[in-house]
Amino acid sequence: MATKLKISSFQDLNPVIHEKTRLAIMTYLISTRQASFSEVKSELELTDGNLNLHMKVLEKNGYTRVQKAFVRRRPRTTYQVSDKGLRAFQEYVLLLERMLDIGKRGRSAVARPAKP
Amino acid sequence: MATKLKISSFQDLNPVIHEKTRLAIMTYLISTRQASFSEVKSELELTDGNLNLHMKVLEKNGYTRVQKAFVRRRPRTTYQVSDKGLRAFQEYVLLLERMLDIGKRGRSAVARPAKP
Repeated sequence: MATKLKISSFQDLNPVIHEKTRLAIMTYLISTRQASFSEVKSELELTDGNLNLHMKVLEKNGYTRVQKAFVRRRPRTTYQVSDKGLRAFQEYVLLLERMLDIGKRGRSAVARPAKP
Repeated sequence: MATKLKISSFQDLNPVIHEKTRLAIMTYLISTRQASFSEVKSELELTDGNLNLHMKVLEKNGYTRVQKAFVRRRPRTTYQVSDKGLRAFQEYVLLLERMLDIGKRGRSAVARPAKP
């Protein structure tokens, strides 16, 4: 049986990942394994500046790996989530889901998504 | 079958609820149905100032109801999540879970919490 989670554990939710733009970037990069700057920008509907800012935070924390290459003589920057980033994401999701379960157990009105 | 979620939907994650202290407050109040200021403060390990700040944001958005009463001649403030707050929480959780599922589907290494 899992140990009882204290609600004060929310303090441990990783702020690097919890910020919603970075949460979307991490989720997207994990789902695609790797993506170029312009793909991420287009899929997430972000500006260059905004995406650049959040990419730098992820990179600084070692959560992403960046590869620069030339494709048809044009520079192409590709991003992927590092092993450290994947572990941090997993820990974040586990803690978040356990926290949300506290709310769900307390009041069954919180709906669950339909299983396909 | 559920409609396909675009990763850009992260923009719709309710910022009032996504902020992690308020997420914990909402989760706690839903689980307990109602709680006093001092109970929330103690359970979440917050300062008076910090809790007060976030409680005001939730109240201003109509997500909580506040009751003030005297118990043994001492003022006691009790909070509970309003119907509007509960709906907003449910919508937030559904969108968040669907977003996180994108990451999980993409790379099965993202662990799920063990079922009891």
